[in-house]
Amino acid sequence: MSQPEPVLDIAHLGHVELLTPKLEESRRFFVDIWGMVESGRAGDSVYLRGWDDYERHSLKLTAAKEPGLGHYAFRARSQPALERRVKAIEAAGLGIGWTKGDIGHGPAYLFQTPDGHKMELYYETEWYSPPPELKPALKNQAQKFPGRGINVRRLDHINLLASDVTPTRQFHQDVLGMRMTEQIILDNGIEAAGWVTATNKSYDVAISRDHTGTRGRLHHFTYAVDCREDILRAADIYLDNGVFIETGPHKHAIQQTFFLYAYEPGGTRVEIANAGARLILAPDWKPIVWTEAERKKGQAWGLQTVSTFHTYGTPPVEHK
Amino acid sequence: MSQPEPVLDIAHLGHVELLTPKLEESRRFFVDIWGMVESGRAGDSVYLRGWDDYERHSLKLTAAKEPGLGHYAFRARSQPALERRVKAIEAAGLGIGWTKGDIGHGPAYLFQTPDGHKMELYYETEWYSPPPELKPALKNQAQKFPGRGINVRRLDHINLLASDVTPTRQFHQDVLGMRMTEQIILDNGIEAAGWVTATNKSYDVAISRDHTGTRGRLHHFTYAVDCREDILRAADIYLDNGVFIETGPHKHAIQQTFFLYAYEPGGTRVEIANAGARLILAPDWKPIVWTEAERKKGQAWGLQTVSTFHTYGTPPVEHK
Amino acid sequence: MSQPEPVLDIAHLGHVELLTPKLEESRRFFVDIWGMVESGRAGDSVYLRGWDDYERHSLKLTAAKEPGLGHYAFRARSQPALERRVKAIEAAGLGIGWTKGDIGHGPAYLFQTPDGHKMELYYETEWYSPPPELKPALKNQAQKFPGRGINVRRLDHINLLASDVTPTRQFHQDVLGMRMTEQIILDNGIEAAGWVTATNKSYDVAISRDHTGTRGRLHHFTYAVDCREDILRAADIYLDNGVFIETGPHKHAIQQTFFLYAYEPGGTRVEIANAGARLILAPDWKPIVWTEAERKKGQAWGLQTVSTFHTYGTPPVEHK
Amino acid sequence: MSQPEPVLDIAHLGHVELLTPKLEESRRFFVDIWGMVESGRAGDSVYLRGWDDYERHSLKLTAAKEPGLGHYAFRARSQPALERRVKAIEAAGLGIGWTKGDIGHGPAYLFQTPDGHKMELYYETEWYSPPPELKPALKNQAQKFPGRGINVRRLDHINLLASDVTPTRQFHQDVLGMRMTEQIILDNGIEAAGWVTATNKSYDVAISRDHTGTRGRLHHFTYAVDCREDILRAADIYLDNGVFIETGPHKHAIQQTFFLYAYEPGGTRVEIANAGARLILAPDWKPIVWTEAERKKGQAWGLQTVSTFHTYGTPPVEHK
Repeated sequence: MSQPEPVLDIAHLGHVELLTPKLEESRRFFVDIWGMVESGRAGDSVYLRGWDDYERHSLKLTAAKEPGLGHYAFRARSQPALERRVKAIEAAGLGIGWTKGDIGHGPAYLFQTPDGHKMELYYETEWYSPPPELKPALKNQAQKFPGRGINVRRLDHINLLASDVTPTRQFHQDVLGMRMTEQIILDNGIEAAGWVTATNKSYDVAISRDHTGTRGRLHHFTYAVDCREDILRAADIYLDNGVFIETGPHKHAIQQTFFLYAYEPGGTRVEIANAGARLILAPDWKPIVWTEAERKKGQAWGLQTVSTFHTYGTPPVEHK
Repeated sequence: MSQPEPVLDIAHLGHVELLTPKLEESRRFFVDIWGMVESGRAGDSVYLRGWDDYERHSLKLTAAKEPGLGHYAFRARSQPALERRVKAIEAAGLGIGWTKGDIGHGPAYLFQTPDGHKMELYYETEWYSPPPELKPALKNQAQKFPGRGINVRRLDHINLLASDVTPTRQFHQDVLGMRMTEQIILDNGIEAAGWVTATNKSYDVAISRDHTGTRGRLHHFTYAVDCREDILRAADIYLDNGVFIETGPHKHAIQQTFFLYAYEPGGTRVEIANAGARLILAPDWKPIVWTEAERKKGQAWGLQTVSTFHTYGTPPVEHK
Repeated sequence: MSQPEPVLDIAHLGHVELLTPKLEESRRFFVDIWGMVESGRAGDSVYLRGWDDYERHSLKLTAAKEPGLGHYAFRARSQPALERRVKAIEAAGLGIGWTKGDIGHGPAYLFQTPDGHKMELYYETEWYSPPPELKPALKNQAQKFPGRGINVRRLDHINLLASDVTPTRQFHQDVLGMRMTEQIILDNGIEAAGWVTATNKSYDVAISRDHTGTRGRLHHFTYAVDCREDILRAADIYLDNGVFIETGPHKHAIQQTFFLYAYEPGGTRVEIANAGARLILAPDWKPIVWTEAERKKGQAWGLQTVSTFHTYGTPPVEHK
Repeated sequence: MSQPEPVLDIAHLGHVELLTPKLEESRRFFVDIWGMVESGRAGDSVYLRGWDDYERHSLKLTAAKEPGLGHYAFRARSQPALERRVKAIEAAGLGIGWTKGDIGHGPAYLFQTPDGHKMELYYETEWYSPPPELKPALKNQAQKFPGRGINVRRLDHINLLASDVTPTRQFHQDVLGMRMTEQIILDNGIEAAGWVTATNKSYDVAISRDHTGTRGRLHHFTYAVDCREDILRAADIYLDNGVFIETGPHKHAIQQTFFLYAYEPGGTRVEIANAGARLILAPDWKPIVWTEAERKKGQAWGLQTVSTFHTYGTPPVEHK
C-alpha cells in the first residue's frame, strides 16, 4: 500500500544509431532486404524507417571504423516527464548533457548506462510525412506498405551486451522507470540477462551478459513484422540473397518471441521478430526468473542456443 | 507545455460480464468453439478465461432473461490509482458504490457511463493458477494452450452502443484518463463512433452510435488471437459448427483490425480479432477522424458494412 | 470393369496469352505489383513468369485494341500424347492447325473450344534458365524469390466465360481427357459452371456461364501463392497501390479456394489464390454438384457473390 | 521420341499400417494431439483418418511387440491398372500374394520392396461417410474440421530406411511407375536418399540410407496441414503436451518442405509438413541431385541435421 507509485515517464524506444564500416552496403541491406525507406541524410549518416514507424526515422546509420552501437534513444511521455528523467539521470551520475537534437527530433539529453552504452532521451519529434508516392491508402497508417523484401513494420527493441548485467538493468528500472518482465539467474547467482519494458510490449530493452567481459557492446536490435509467416518468408529472402542466418526461425522460450537472427553487412546482428498477441497488461507483473538448468533446455521447441550468441557482439572483440 | 500531464491510472480491460438467456449453450460455445476454460461458478454465473489471460477470469456469463451487458471492468494500475479514479467518478456524478468484489478479484467500485452501461474498477486480483492438467510448459504463460476450437488468447476490447456517443466517449477520456485514437464524425457533426485506449493497444473500448436510439446496449466484445490465419480458421470452425457469421473475415479500415463477427447462442455479437504488430506507441497520438464519405467506402478492402452492424445489439430492440 | 481407361495425355496448364489495350501499364502491374519477371519480348508481346514456373514463361501479354484472351495452352505429357490429342481434336472438328511455336516452346497445335476460345497444345518447352542476379539459393527452385509486391508463385488455372457451359466443359473432358471435379446445375437444368482438372489440383480450367450470352470470353486467370496470409497481404498491396479489388479475400464454397479478385490495368479480372493442402487424389472422384439454392448461400463464410461476377468479362460487352 | 511412355497406374499413397507396442497411448496421441478420427476397430487394430482423407482410413494402428511399419499401401488408378502392376511385381519376383482386403478397402496384392518393407496395392475402396456429428458444412469436404490439437488434413508421404537405397528406389520407379524428383549421391557414389512420386506432389515416398545397415525399417510417415503457421502451432502443442520434438520446425533444403518431427508414444518418428503451393507439374522433371557437400550445409536456413536422423528408425536397433 505504501509502495511508491510507478514512474511512467518513458513512452517508447524511439531509434537506434548503428555504426557501420560499410555504410552503403548497410543502407542497401536495410532498404532492399528489409524494405525500409530512407527519410534523411546528413554528413556520414543515413536515416531510415519501417513503414509503420510514426516518427521520421527509427534507424540512423552512421559510417564508422567499427560496427556497433552509436546510441539508442527513448521518447519521453511529455516535456515534464523528460525533465524529471533528466534530473534522475543526473542524480545517478550518468548524465552527459543536452544536444540540440537531430534530423527528426528536438533537444535530447545524452547519457550512458553503467556499462557505458550511450543513450538519449527526447520529447519533441517530427511525425513522418510521406511524399506522394509513399502516401498510404488508409490515413491511420504512417506510410504505404513497401512491398519490398521483408517489409519490416516498426522498431521493436534493443538487446545490449554488458560486462555486468545487473547495474545496467537496474538503471533502466530505478532511474528510467521501466519494469523487469523476465530474467536469467545462473546457479552462481550471476544475472545472465534481464528484460525490461516501458510499454505493454513484453520488453523494450534486453541486457545480456557479455562472455568476453567487454563493456558497452551491442548484441542486436529488432524490428517487428505482423506474423510468424512473415519471418519464415524473411528467412527465404535471406537465403536467396546470401545473407548469413545465425539462428532461427524458432521461438524463444524466454518472452516467447518468434525470432530470426542475421548479420547486416557492417557486421551487426539484427533480428526480425513477432510476439503474436502477447502483451504485458498486468501493472504488477512479477518477473519470471529462469534458472541455468531451464536455459540449458534450449529454445522453446528444443533448438540449442548457438554459442556465438554469448560472445559475438559489435564492435567485435577477440574472444579468448 | 502547461498542458496537464496524462492520467495513467487504468491498467487494462479486466473482464466483461455477459448476460445470456441460454447459459448452458453460451457456456458450451465459449468452451467448445472458442477454447476457453471454466475457472469458477457461483449462483447463476460461470467464469471463463482465454489461455493467456493472467487473471482468473476475463468473461463472466450470467443467466438472464435477455442477452446483453452485465458490466465491464477495468483493472486500475495501483490501489492509489483506483482511489483517485473513484474520486473522479464520484465527482462526475456517475458513481454507484463499492462492491465486496467477486470470484477472482477484490473490492470493486461500481458506476455507469453517461449512456447507462454498468462499469467496475478494481485493483486486487487473483492471478490464475492452473490445475495440473492445464500447466503450461513455459512458465511465462498463464495456462497450457488448449488445442480446442478457436483457442482465443485473451480479452481484447469491448464495443458499446450508445444513444449518444460523445458523452460516453468523453467520460472514458476525461474521468477515466483514456486516450482517443480514432473517431467517425458524420457530415451533420454527429459522432458516429469513437475509440479509446488505456494501453498501447490501439483501442480498449469502442463506442458506436445506436441507430435505434436505445441507451446502454452492447455491440460486441472481442478476444485476440495470434494471427490472421487463426481468424480464417475460426471462420472454418464457425461454418462447420453452424455458428452464424455476421460479417468477415475482413480488415477494418478504422484501426486496421482483422475481424470476424458471429453471434453466440444467447444472441450477443462476439468478435475474434488480430491487430498484427500495430501498437499506439506515440504518447501524443492525434486522433484520426474519419468522415461520412470515407466510411461509405466500406471496410479496408471494399467489403460493405452490413446493415445489422448499426442496429443489432443486445438486448435486442424492435427497430423501426 | 469394362469402363475405358482414363486419358492422361495433358500434363498441365502451360500459359495464358492476355490481350491488353494498355501493354505497358499491364506489364508494370504484373512486374511491380505481382512480382513477375520479364523473360522475353517479341513484336507486341511481353513474356512473364512467376518465380516457381519451370518454363520460360507462363503469361504472354499482347497489345490489342480490346482486353481479353489471346489463347491458353496446355503442355502434353509426351510427344506421343500430344499427337494423340491432336488426332482427337481434329476428329472433334475443332482443330485449326500447327504453329511453329513461340518464344519458350516448340510446335503447338492451335484449336478452339466449342464456345470459341483459342487453345494450344504443345510438348517441347524451354526450361527457364535464370540470369545470375535471379539464381536461387536452392537448386530445386526455378528462380530466386523476387521479394517484390505479391510474389506470385506459379500459374494455377484459367476461368472461361461461355455462352453455353456444357459443350465446352465436355470438350475438356471427352477430347482432352480432363476430369470434372465440381459443377453447378441450376433449377432449370442449365449448367452454370463446371470445373475440370488434368492434374491433382482440384481444377485447371473453370467454365462459367456468361449471363450476357456472349461467346468465347475470359472470366479471369489465377496465380497461386503459398498461403492465405500471402493473399491478405496482397489485398493490402492492392489497396495501397490503387488497384480495384472486385471481391475478396474470402473462401469459395465451391473448391474451397481462398481468393482475391482484382482488375489489371487492361481491364481483365485476375485472381490470386491458395488451395491449402487440398488435392484431388482419388482417381475416381465423383463430381460434386451444387444446386441453385446452395449457390445462393454465397461463398463459404457467407459473402454474397458480387453481381459483376456473372456479367463482367473481357472483352467487355454492353450488358442489357 | 522412342522413349517408352510413362506408366501412370498408381493413384496415390492410400494408408500406412503402424505397429506400436503402446496401442492405446498411440491411439490417444493421434486422436487427441493430431486431431484424427477413429473410423474402425478390428482385432488388435484401430483405424484412423485425417479430416480431408477421402477414404475410410489412412492410418492403421496395430498392436505389436516392437514399433515399426506393418505395411504401406498405394491405391491403383483403376482395376486394370492394379492388374498390370501386379503382373510387373510378380515378374520382379517381389510378390507375395492377394489378401481379401481390410476394413475400408477391397482385395489387395501384398508384396515387398527389395529391402523388405511390406507393401500393398488395391483399387476398390470405401469412401468415408461421416456420422451426423462429423458432417461437414461444405459437401466437397470429407469430414467436419475437428478443431482438436493439430488437425492433420491428410496423409502425405512415407519415408523408408533402407540398407541399400538404390534397389528399393528403382523398384518404385521401374516396377510401380513412379518418378524420381530428388536424390542425394555421396562422394563415394553411394545413394544416400531418393524421393519418388506418383502424383503432382513432389514426393510420395522417400527412401533414406539406414546407417545401421538394417533392412526394411521405417524412418517416418507424414501428414499434411494447410500452412506453415499450422506447423508452428503444432510445435506449441507438442511442447505443452510433453511430446518429444526431434527437430524443427524448419524448412528442408531438399524438397523445400516445412517440417516438424516428433516421436509418437510407440516410438515411431512422425512428421507434420506443408509444401506451400509447390507441385511438380513438369511431366519430364529432371531429378535434382544433391552432393555430400551440399547436404553438409544443413537444412534450408542452416539448421544442422540431427544425428538421430541417420540412425533412429523403427523398430529400433542398437547402433554401434
